[in-house]
Amino acid sequence: MMSGQTARGAADAADRSHITADQLALRTAEVLEKIRASVPRVHCLTNAVAQAFTANVLLALGAIPSMTISPEEVPFFTASAQALLVNLGTLDEARKEAANRAISIAAGEGKPWVLDPVFADRSPPRLTEARRLLALKPSLLKINAGELAALGGGASVLELSRQLGLPVAVTGAVDDISSGTQGLRLANGHPLMGKVTATGCAAGAVAAAALAVERDPVVAAAAALSIMAIAGERAAVTAAGPGSFVPAFLDALYGLDAPQIGAHLRLA
Amino acid sequence: MMSGQTARGAADAADRSHITADQLALRTAEVLEKIRASVPRVHCLTNAVAQAFTANVLLALGAIPSMTISPEEVPFFTASAQALLVNLGTLDEARKEAANRAISIAAGEGKPWVLDPVFADRSPPRLTEARRLLALKPSLLKINAGELAALGGGASVLELSRQLGLPVAVTGAVDDISSGTQGLRLANGHPLMGKVTATGCAAGAVAAAALAVERDPVVAAAAALSIMAIAGERAAVTAAGPGSFVPAFLDALYGLDAPQIGAHLRLA
Amino acid sequence: MMSGQTARGAADAADRSHITADQLALRTAEVLEKIRASVPRVHCLTNAVAQAFTANVLLALGAIPSMTISPEEVPFFTASAQALLVNLGTLDEARKEAANRAISIAAGEGKPWVLDPVFADRSPPRLTEARRLLALKPSLLKINAGELAALGGGASVLELSRQLGLPVAVTGAVDDISSGTQGLRLANGHPLMGKVTATGCAAGAVAAAALAVERDPVVAAAAALSIMAIAGERAAVTAAGPGSFVPAFLDALYGLDAPQIGAHLRLA
Repeated sequence: MMSGQTARGAADAADRSHITADQLALRTAEVLEKIRASVPRVHCLTNAVAQAFTANVLLALGAIPSMTISPEEVPFFTASAQALLVNLGTLDEARKEAANRAISIAAGEGKPWVLDPVFADRSPPRLTEARRLLALKPSLLKINAGELAALGGGASVLELSRQLGLPVAVTGAVDDISSGTQGLRLANGHPLMGKVTATGCAAGAVAAAALAVERDPVVAAAAALSIMAIAGERAAVTAAGPGSFVPAFLDALYGLDAPQIGAHLRLA
Repeated sequence: MMSGQTARGAADAADRSHITADQLALRTAEVLEKIRASVPRVHCLTNAVAQAFTANVLLALGAIPSMTISPEEVPFFTASAQALLVNLGTLDEARKEAANRAISIAAGEGKPWVLDPVFADRSPPRLTEARRLLALKPSLLKINAGELAALGGGASVLELSRQLGLPVAVTGAVDDISSGTQGLRLANGHPLMGKVTATGCAAGAVAAAALAVERDPVVAAAAALSIMAIAGERAAVTAAGPGSFVPAFLDALYGLDAPQIGAHLRLA
Repeated sequence: MMSGQTARGAADAADRSHITADQLALRTAEVLEKIRASVPRVHCLTNAVAQAFTANVLLALGAIPSMTISPEEVPFFTASAQALLVNLGTLDEARKEAANRAISIAAGEGKPWVLDPVFADRSPPRLTEARRLLALKPSLLKINAGELAALGGGASVLELSRQLGLPVAVTGAVDDISSGTQGLRLANGHPLMGKVTATGCAAGAVAAAALAVERDPVVAAAAALSIMAIAGERAAVTAAGPGSFVPAFLDALYGLDAPQIGAHLRLA
C-alpha cells in the first residue's frame, strides 16, 4: 500500500538506475548466451493465435517451448520447465484452471513466471482474472499502454510497480520497465512489429526464458525486450512488409550476437 | 419465400448491375482507404487453423483483429468491435455458444457480421448449424462451390441469395456475388491461394472489415474479394511456391494501392 | 508377445531388408506421385501449435487437410478422409474423445491411421493415453528418441516394433523405421528442421498421406520421412535461418520431384 507515492509521476526518472546502454548491451548479450548455453524449457499457457509464432520465437532464441493447456498435464510440463508464461489471450475455462495449477507449481518450486494480460482493457472478466493472478505475484507483469490504463488507472509504470509490489514492463514505441526502485526505458524496435500478430505475446515468452537465466527481473525484462526489438530493427532492413518481416525476424533472432546488440541497443 | 423465382437459372445475368471494372476498382480502393483510415476492430470467431493467418491478414490490411472464443468474453469484444466474423471451421460447443452471444450483440447494435460455414459439405452437424445461423440473417454469407452445393441444393448464387434473403459470395476461380437483385462476377486470383491454408477464411474476415466501412454488401464483398485476389496475383509474381507466397501475399496486401487495383481488377 | 526376442539389440541390422537407396528413391517418388494424383484427404487430430503448419505441409504436398477436433464432427470427417493422424500434443478431453471416435471409424473402414505421442516423455497422463491408443493398433507409430525411451524402456526400434506388433518410425538425425521383420535407416535431413516448431508433427501427417496411397507401412513411412528430409535439405541451401527456412521448405516440398529424390536420398 504505497498510495502516498502514487503522485510522483514526472519524478519517476530519478528512481531509475544509472545503467548505460553499453552496460545493458553487455548484460543482454550475457542473457542471450546463457539461454543458448542452458536451453531452458519454457512452458507457455498462451493464446491460440500466438502459439505457433511463440514456439518458433523460443526455438530461434535457443529455448525449448511447450504449449499444452490441459489442466491435467500442465503440472508435469511446468515441473520439468525452467520458466512459465501465463498469457491471458483467448482466455477460457481450461486456460484459467491450467494457469492456477501451473502457477502453483512454479511458485512452489521458485520458478519464474511472467503474466501477460493481453486485451485486459477490452474484457472486464479478463481484467478481473488479471487482478486475481497479480495477487499471486508473478515474477514480471508485461503489458502495453492500453492494459496499463486498465490495470493502473492512470498510474505510471513505476507507480503500478510499487502498488503491485512486482516488476512491470510496458511495451510500446518506448519500452518502460520498473521494479519499483529502479527502471529502464528502451528505445529499440520498429513499427512493423505492430503489424504482425503475436510479437508482443512472444516477447512475454522471451522474458520468461530470460528470467530462467537471469534473476534480476529488470535486467531480464530489458534483455528480453531488447533482443526482440533489435531483431525487429534488423529484420525491417530487408523486409518489404509485414509478411517478409516474420521470417526475417526469426532469422535475425537466430543470428543475433553480442556485437549486434552492442551496436544497436539504445536507451530512451 | 421466393420459390417462384428459383427456376430462373441461366437468366441470372440479366439481374446483375452494370458496374464496370473501372467503377468497381474505384469503389474497392475507397473501401481499402476507409479501412486504413478508420482502423476497424474485427472480432473473429474462426477456426484454430486460420486464427494466426487471419490476424496477420487483418493487420496487413489496416484493421485490428481479436480472436477470443470464450463465451464469457465474446460479448465485450463484439461490443467494442465494428464487425464480426463467424467461421464454422473446427466447430465445437464453445464456438457455438460464442457465436450465439456475439451474433446477438452484433444484431442488437446493427453491426455487420459475416457467416463462413467452412466444410459444411463434409459434416451434417455443421450444415445444421449453418442453417440455424442463416436464419439469424448475416450481413453476408461467404461460401465455396462445395458449400453452395450443400446449402443450395443445386441453386445458383442468385437463387440461393433470394431463397435466404441475404447477400451471398461464392469464391472460386471466379468469385460470384449476389444480393438477389444485383450481382458481380470477379476474375482475379491465383491457384497458389488454394495451396495455402486459410486464405478463404481470411477473405471472410476481410469482408467483415469491408462491411464495417461500406454498407452496400455487394460492393463490400466485391471489394474484399478483389483486394485478396489482386494481392494474391501480385504475390504469385515473385513466389517460388506456396511457402514464399504467404509472406509475399501479406506484403502485397500491406502495400496495395488504388493504381494497382485499377490496373488489375477484372470482371468475369 | 515376443519378449524372447527383445534382447537382440545390436543384431537388429541383420533383420533389415536390403533395399538400396536407388530403389527406395523410386518407391518414394511413386508415393509422391500417387499423392498428387489421388489428392487424399487426411484428417488430422493434432495439437494447436501444429495445425496451421501441418495444413500447409499437406497442401504443398498435394493432399487435402481437415483439422476439426469436435467429437461430434470427427466421425464425418474421418469417414470422408483417406487417412487419419492422431497427434497427442496439447492433449485435452475433447481431443481424447475425438481420437476414440475417429479411430473407431478408421479401424472399421480399414483406413490407415498414424499415432504421434508428442512429448509422452514429459507427461505421465499422456504416456498412459499413448499406451491406451497403441493397443488399438495404429498403422504406424511415429516417435522421437525421448518418446522411444519413455515408451520402450530401452528397447531398440526393432524391439519396440515387435513388442507392439506394429510398425514404428523414430525420427532424429537418422530416421529409424522398423516393422519388426524389416527396417530402414534414413540419413537425410537438416538441423534447421529442429529449430522450427511442428516439423515432426507435420511428418506424421505426411506419413498418413503416404499410407493412403502405399499400404507397405515401412515404404510409406520411409517415403514420408524422406520427402520431408530432402525438402528440408533443399530449403536449408537458401535459408538464412529458421525463419526463411519455413517458406523455403514449403516451396521445396511443392516442387519436389523424382530426380531430386533420386539425387538426394541417402540410407544410413
